[in-house]
Amino acid sequence: MKFVKNALGRMVPAEIDGRAVRPFAGAHADLGGGKRYGGMIPAAAKYQNKLIKDIDAAIDACEIKDGMTISFHHHLRNGDYLVNLVMEKLAQRGLRDLVLAPSALFPTHGKLVEMIESGVISHIEGSMNGPIGKACSLGKMKKAAVLRSHGGRYRAIQDGDLHIDVAFIGAPSADSHGNANGLQGKSACGPLGFALADSLFADKVVVVTDHLVPFPCYPWSIEGGNVDFVVVVDSIGDPAQIVSGTTQITRSPTRLLIAEYAARFVKEAGIMTEANFSFQAGAGGVSLAFVKYMGDLMRQAGVVADFVRGGSTRYMVEMLEQGLTRYILDGQSFDLDGVRSLRDNPCHIETNPFVSYDYHTKGCFAQILKVSVLGATEIDLDYNVNVNTHSDGWLLHGIGGFTDAADAHCTMITAPLVRSRLPIVVDQVTTVTAPGEMIDVVVTEYGVAVNPRRQDLLDRLRGSSLPLRRIEELRQIALRMTGEPEKPQFAERVVAVVEFRDGTIIDTVRELIPQA
Amino acid sequence: MKFVKNALGRMVPAEIDGRAVRPFAGAHADLGGGKRYGGMIPAAAKYQNKLIKDIDAAIDACEIKDGMTISFHHHLRNGDYLVNLVMEKLAQRGLRDLVLAPSALFPTHGKLVEMIESGVISHIEGSMNGPIGKACSLGKMKKAAVLRSHGGRYRAIQDGDLHIDVAFIGAPSADSHGNANGLQGKSACGPLGFALADSLFADKVVVVTDHLVPFPCYPWSIEGGNVDFVVVVDSIGDPAQIVSGTTQITRSPTRLLIAEYAARFVKEAGIMTEANFSFQAGAGGVSLAFVKYMGDLMRQAGVVADFVRGGSTRYMVEMLEQGLTRYILDGQSFDLDGVRSLRDNPCHIETNPFVSYDYHTKGCFAQILKVSVLGATEIDLDYNVNVNTHSDGWLLHGIGGFTDAADAHCTMITAPLVRSRLPIVVDQVTTVTAPGEMIDVVVTEYGVAVNPRRQDLLDRLRGSSLPLRRIEELRQIALRMTGEPEKPQFAERVVAVVEFRDGTIIDTVRELIPQA
Repeated sequence: MKFVKNALGRMVPAEIDGRAVRPFAGAHADLGGGKRYGGMIPAAAKYQNKLIKDIDAAIDACEIKDGMTISFHHHLRNGDYLVNLVMEKLAQRGLRDLVLAPSALFPTHGKLVEMIESGVISHIEGSMNGPIGKACSLGKMKKAAVLRSHGGRYRAIQDGDLHIDVAFIGAPSADSHGNANGLQGKSACGPLGFALADSLFADKVVVVTDHLVPFPCYPWSIEGGNVDFVVVVDSIGDPAQIVSGTTQITRSPTRLLIAEYAARFVKEAGIMTEANFSFQAGAGGVSLAFVKYMGDLMRQAGVVADFVRGGSTRYMVEMLEQGLTRYILDGQSFDLDGVRSLRDNPCHIETNPFVSYDYHTKGCFAQILKVSVLGATEIDLDYNVNVNTHSDGWLLHGIGGFTDAADAHCTMITAPLVRSRLPIVVDQVTTVTAPGEMIDVVVTEYGVAVNPRRQDLLDRLRGSSLPLRRIEELRQIALRMTGEPEKPQFAERVVAVVEFRDGTIIDTVRELIPQA
Repeated sequence: MKFVKNALGRMVPAEIDGRAVRPFAGAHADLGGGKRYGGMIPAAAKYQNKLIKDIDAAIDACEIKDGMTISFHHHLRNGDYLVNLVMEKLAQRGLRDLVLAPSALFPTHGKLVEMIESGVISHIEGSMNGPIGKACSLGKMKKAAVLRSHGGRYRAIQDGDLHIDVAFIGAPSADSHGNANGLQGKSACGPLGFALADSLFADKVVVVTDHLVPFPCYPWSIEGGNVDFVVVVDSIGDPAQIVSGTTQITRSPTRLLIAEYAARFVKEAGIMTEANFSFQAGAGGVSLAFVKYMGDLMRQAGVVADFVRGGSTRYMVEMLEQGLTRYILDGQSFDLDGVRSLRDNPCHIETNPFVSYDYHTKGCFAQILKVSVLGATEIDLDYNVNVNTHSDGWLLHGIGGFTDAADAHCTMITAPLVRSRLPIVVDQVTTVTAPGEMIDVVVTEYGVAVNPRRQDLLDRLRGSSLPLRRIEELRQIALRMTGEPEKPQFAERVVAVVEFRDGTIIDTVRELIPQA
């Protein structure tokens, strides 16, 4: 691998798997240019009957061969059956060197580790949560994995950087033409937007459903005109696990405090009462608490948001139902209230990574968003953020929409200052997921740090009772509690690259030498 | 021009304006292949504020130059202001040789004839209804016009055959990001699907609205992520003229009889009572009457259609509201009831030419459709249909969705046998718009002819009381009434080519030598 230094001083490869890549040059340095991938021109006459007997027949019809790239979406989250089902069949056929390109994998997909070890799967281009990430850290993949944000994945597919041979799209509801959505059926999961790019640009698209409905299945989050085959199976997932994010507000006083600080920051900086207020917050205890506190403050001030962005949760749905926001713009449902609301409430709108997150568009929702509240595993004195690896070096998380949502006007990181006896504020992050120039505020239980680049925010907060601190102070407080933790030991080998949303390489993950 | 003979024996050019084209080879002979046009890769960072002062500023920002291709949609029909507004400004700037690529033009655009004569407009790729068609017939365009169906236009744009430099999209409702629909505002026109391809593939996209709403404008028939600029003007059209199709059922006993025969045919052939019944019928007196008769027959038989396809009209909306169809799949609204229903009824669904009509998809709705009822200017003994020129040689109509909708399981032409003392059934059509292999039934007041290719339909109609006749008999009856009309005189020069939906050339239109 030939390496070059990027704008953050990280050494990154100039080429990945034979494809030339550019080093990260700044959050908004990329100005586009070139042509998107067009995709193949099909002919309608060849698509008279798309219903096909079973997954095996679909694999035959798609002529899947060694080395091909196979994709999946992750709206069924830890309840997904489809990835394992299809990959086991491909393994049984003796296929090798497949590139797996899911939008994300979860602990339920742990058995893929064997397929990585045996060479069925060469590597993964996609988010890896948990055991697959561990296997990647240990150098078990033949080639470097590629980590992308949700918007970055859409971009890579539309630009032709990630060519998908066959996309399998689990669909809670579909018709025989291939129109599909996630709103109806026993496996209803809400939006299907993570599969949109796959449907538009993959050579072959297989919709797999456990709920076949008469034509037309509407809304068609996935349009039949992009679908080759439709397979009906007994079940695409475990409904109880499909929406498996943290769905309860944290009870930890520390975390409640962090959420409260974050909401108060939005108010005291005057952002909440400006025109066109909007915010994004995900699942997880702190985020849910933030949504609740934010809602309380908005109610007191008589503020109605233009929109809030999900992943949708019960607390967002309550805001919509109570008139605190005009719309929810929803990329994925984290709980069943989110699914129900998306199905029944016309102001709860399904989005996809193209409209929300894709940097190679003529603008996307992320840059319209006022406030984005995000988590992190590490943040450093330059405000660079790591969400992929932990300080102990293990690759355990995908990027999700982090780098995309960080394009909001005010991006806030909420995190406890110390987690598992490791400081969250560090001198230099182990892995850079997002550059410090995108991060405006860090909220911990020991204080709130504002990026010095945002003097405007600091000015607005003069006289605030929030515990404002410099990030260096937070670092010192953390160090006093934990001492300097031992550094992980890495081998030379690059096991994963972290691609920024514009396609440039922002960092690498190196093989971890596990400590005894 | 070098000519080749196509599968229907028509001599057609092998090249149009420097682009190699294939001769028509059969309705389903094209099997796809090659890559779609990808479109340019933009960068979101360049799109912070899309609102621009006025049309002039948009023209400046788009850097419109001589020879560029400029596009518009026609959902505002004869009430459209935008084509004239923009083209006048381009003419004032002294621009020349522009290619105009509207989805259709109407009589209100008659003043473009001057711009054609003066060289501002080189030629038109798009449908021309009325005066512009006449100008084309008289050879006033510098280059041959290209006529395409709605689906064929989408295909040409996605495949890169029709490259649009700048698309101006009139939007009855839009936000500052460029999200737009046709449902709200004083100029509400219903769907905006004819502009979808333009928005996806044009280099520059300008949304022009007279009703700016707060973000997010939803549904986003046009997605802001594809839009460069948003311009607010006083008015994009005359609401009274926007939905200007024939909105009254014919009172002519002859035409009522034709409509009744058509509906009875659908019933007596057993199509109405088969599973998954659906039909399409447009505006115009006979079509409206057909919809009404069809509804009556369905009501009597207790039949509920899976869907009916518009252009939507009051009569279709009544069917939906009375439970005679599960859905309306609507490509354009022909009257205000259509607009209202699309806005308010969740079972009235907006479609676009990609999902409905595009042959270069993995299947589209046209081929799912059971019955399609269409008009024609001529039909010949081989069942070839002409909808573009009249028997007197004048080019007066676009193709609309004719060639696309003709892919239905049963395509029926309804027409009076004689119109303006010219027979509709002729030996050979003046211009072939659609090949006879797609046409199954011709319904006139003097009888119903079934294409001999459809022996299955003839078998089903054994014992029917419908006046079944061979098409040759209809031809004889017509001739007895009109005598053999004088043939138009054409010059050698090709003034327009008729492109089939797959991109092949099915026929040409030659310059007309007007008779004194």
